[in-house]
Amino acid sequence: MARSNTRIQAVMHEIQSRIAARIYGPGARLPSVRAQAQVMGLSVSTVVEAYERLMAQGVLTSRPGSGFYVEGPVAPLALTEIGPKLDRAVDPLWVSRQTLEAGDAMLRPGCGWLPPALLYESGMRRALRTLARASPLELAEYASPQGQLPLRQLLSRRMLAHDIEAPPQQIMLTESGTQAIDLICRFLLEPGDTVLVDDPCYFNFHALLKAHRAQVVGVAYTPQGPDIEKFEAALQAHAPRLYITNSGIHNPTGATLSAVTAHRVLKLAERAGLTIIEDDIFADFEHSPAPRLAALDGLARVIHIGSFSKTLSASLRCGFVAARPDWIDSLIDLKIATSFAGGRLAADVTHAALTDSGYRKHMEALRIHLAQGMHTTLSRLAKLGIEPWHTPKAGMFIWCQLPDGVDSAALARRCLQQQVVLAPGNAFSPNQNAGSFLRFNVAQSTDDRVFSVLAGALREERQHR
Amino acid sequence: MARSNTRIQAVMHEIQSRIAARIYGPGARLPSVRAQAQVMGLSVSTVVEAYERLMAQGVLTSRPGSGFYVEGPVAPLALTEIGPKLDRAVDPLWVSRQTLEAGDAMLRPGCGWLPPALLYESGMRRALRTLARASPLELAEYASPQGQLPLRQLLSRRMLAHDIEAPPQQIMLTESGTQAIDLICRFLLEPGDTVLVDDPCYFNFHALLKAHRAQVVGVAYTPQGPDIEKFEAALQAHAPRLYITNSGIHNPTGATLSAVTAHRVLKLAERAGLTIIEDDIFADFEHSPAPRLAALDGLARVIHIGSFSKTLSASLRCGFVAARPDWIDSLIDLKIATSFAGGRLAADVTHAALTDSGYRKHMEALRIHLAQGMHTTLSRLAKLGIEPWHTPKAGMFIWCQLPDGVDSAALARRCLQQQVVLAPGNAFSPNQNAGSFLRFNVAQSTDDRVFSVLAGALREERQHR
Repeated sequence: MARSNTRIQAVMHEIQSRIAARIYGPGARLPSVRAQAQVMGLSVSTVVEAYERLMAQGVLTSRPGSGFYVEGPVAPLALTEIGPKLDRAVDPLWVSRQTLEAGDAMLRPGCGWLPPALLYESGMRRALRTLARASPLELAEYASPQGQLPLRQLLSRRMLAHDIEAPPQQIMLTESGTQAIDLICRFLLEPGDTVLVDDPCYFNFHALLKAHRAQVVGVAYTPQGPDIEKFEAALQAHAPRLYITNSGIHNPTGATLSAVTAHRVLKLAERAGLTIIEDDIFADFEHSPAPRLAALDGLARVIHIGSFSKTLSASLRCGFVAARPDWIDSLIDLKIATSFAGGRLAADVTHAALTDSGYRKHMEALRIHLAQGMHTTLSRLAKLGIEPWHTPKAGMFIWCQLPDGVDSAALARRCLQQQVVLAPGNAFSPNQNAGSFLRFNVAQSTDDRVFSVLAGALREERQHR
Repeated sequence: MARSNTRIQAVMHEIQSRIAARIYGPGARLPSVRAQAQVMGLSVSTVVEAYERLMAQGVLTSRPGSGFYVEGPVAPLALTEIGPKLDRAVDPLWVSRQTLEAGDAMLRPGCGWLPPALLYESGMRRALRTLARASPLELAEYASPQGQLPLRQLLSRRMLAHDIEAPPQQIMLTESGTQAIDLICRFLLEPGDTVLVDDPCYFNFHALLKAHRAQVVGVAYTPQGPDIEKFEAALQAHAPRLYITNSGIHNPTGATLSAVTAHRVLKLAERAGLTIIEDDIFADFEHSPAPRLAALDGLARVIHIGSFSKTLSASLRCGFVAARPDWIDSLIDLKIATSFAGGRLAADVTHAALTDSGYRKHMEALRIHLAQGMHTTLSRLAKLGIEPWHTPKAGMFIWCQLPDGVDSAALARRCLQQQVVLAPGNAFSPNQNAGSFLRFNVAQSTDDRVFSVLAGALREERQHR
């Protein structure tokens, strides 16, 4: 009886999830009880009971002799209702909210960014004082639709240092790296389109692509970039519209794209007519630059995006897109339509801070600090039997495997009770095959309590099993 | 022959516009030549010729005996290709870009905002200096997902002054008023849904709703609010999902909603299950507050949004949404997914500037300044025979009719050649029935040259006709 109840609830959840994802629109006729039962491998009576409970809840309605229909107006888009019901510990949105909302008492070794004290505080203070003396135009007028030219010129020169030829007229400023990707998705995607991502990848990609109602397909990531055979197979099997990746330093693995993989990815993309978003927000963390897809491709099918939330300040919102000139023009229209104008003040503060002579020194010191943190964190994790999947050349992330197949979501729940926020592997994995992985941020793992809590939780989790 | 060519091009444009709007997706079969001809009231041979030219351009393909199909992969979303081909002078996106891009030499009586010198410059300078001394957390950390609590508390108190009960937990900060509306559209709209707007209304609503592929229906606006009979008829004819309006001071007409109209709109909305977005960005310009839909409704079906781009600074991006608690929760998820975190710095600067004792004085002085500007501009326009549709109680806008049926788009083109940017009526009119109207901004109409150029252009336009 209890088991049958679980099955009924599974059917109910499946249907509600499809209504939330608007696969079943308002007034839509549901598959027949018999067909649904067959597809789900359940008995007809289980499905009937689920349909009837949903009728009682006002979700469905029936017409005699004609079947079951979705009742009422379309449901608002609730991202948490779309897709498989995830354990909260690995739900991408919940992980984002948990990290963003964590109070000061929390330790956040799973956090995706640096503690504020490591960002460019002195440069921010100087830039704000400079802006306080700026003209009324800078203080109070809207930004130009494409974004302030001095910052676009600076970005153009910075990209050239990575061999990316992007003149200022091929650059548009946005309010964040995420908004840059979102505008590109609005521009290129249709609901139902397939998008390739790395498995594992930055977890907010899942949430963003859900909001665009895209089908997400994960391709296994290797220490040199995506697994080329699997990448090719995915292109053939799914005809994706878009591939989103990080080249410089990959989130969450810390790996870097190799030249040969970059070249192969591009060749396959050309053959398949695939567009690629190269998210380069970790560019300034590299000691020596990895190859960039946008450099090889010349911004033909690669769209290059970035921001300074990870090095300068996350409290400022300023990102950018570099792409084909005709695409930039359409992206500007979409930006005006959906956010009117970018943040001029944010762009001016960013420009002032980046051109401040101190930024280069700040980044040099930060890279050394992170390299030391990487070394220390790797050895402290090793003592707990936690091994890196790959030793990153730079950046803040280590992608680690837990010993003895310990489940990282279960571990994350235990640590959360002790005010330590972890980032469990499956939050990053579209195929949910990183259940024994964790992402560590070396800059957020300096407190001894991170490791003592982790040791205790590991011990408990092993005993529990 | 020439006329038939025009018809062929009309058919071609119609089809390309539907492909751009993705009404005809990639691979979709087009209506038969016979059906298309009947719908458009044209001859079969005209439609055949149009289809064949589109085949020659690689837009369509044919399969013998089976009809015409949309060729190739889906086109990226180009907003300018969707909908009827508008005269550039009245294309909402073009008007936005033209105003945002206008150089310093341009006079902008058609602009939708104040010149920067009238915004709260001294308060911005003080707020930036204060922020330059803030903690690393304020300078460099992400905002909380819902937005900084002190500003939400302040907004809650401010709304209470308009009888709107919105506790801080029912408020979410956004990066702009436009982003607030965009997130609500993501949350509530399906492609193809119908949205009611006022005719005339703020022109960027058209562009925003195009990006969501909504059907826009305009309801005639009166000096007391929407025309209630037409509003009721539109509800019955189109079953819209949403109605977007301004209550305080209406853009572009400067009219204010009356209590009786507000009550009727809400009663009709309740009966029809309609959600209303009340865009209140001009709230602080009112001498005495008009009734608010959100106040009467208690935020049940009304979503109240606002920002400070029009009174404080447009260079800062900070807006807000007040709505039902369960909707706020889903909107936060959508905000994280599509822009990750709001601008903490922008929220902190906004909070500092609004709580500065000078803001109230700044607004008092600004309201007096605008009242004087309104008086002067009305009398200068009257000398040219340009009459207001309605005399606004407050704000910066006058909605005017040109004498002798002069076409405002033609006039705008003439003035643009002389570096004067006007806002022609049909850019605001979903039904394109404001061809002899212009919107003037009294704060941008202080230069004598505005009126001399206008007088000259009016004279030329009359002679031309």
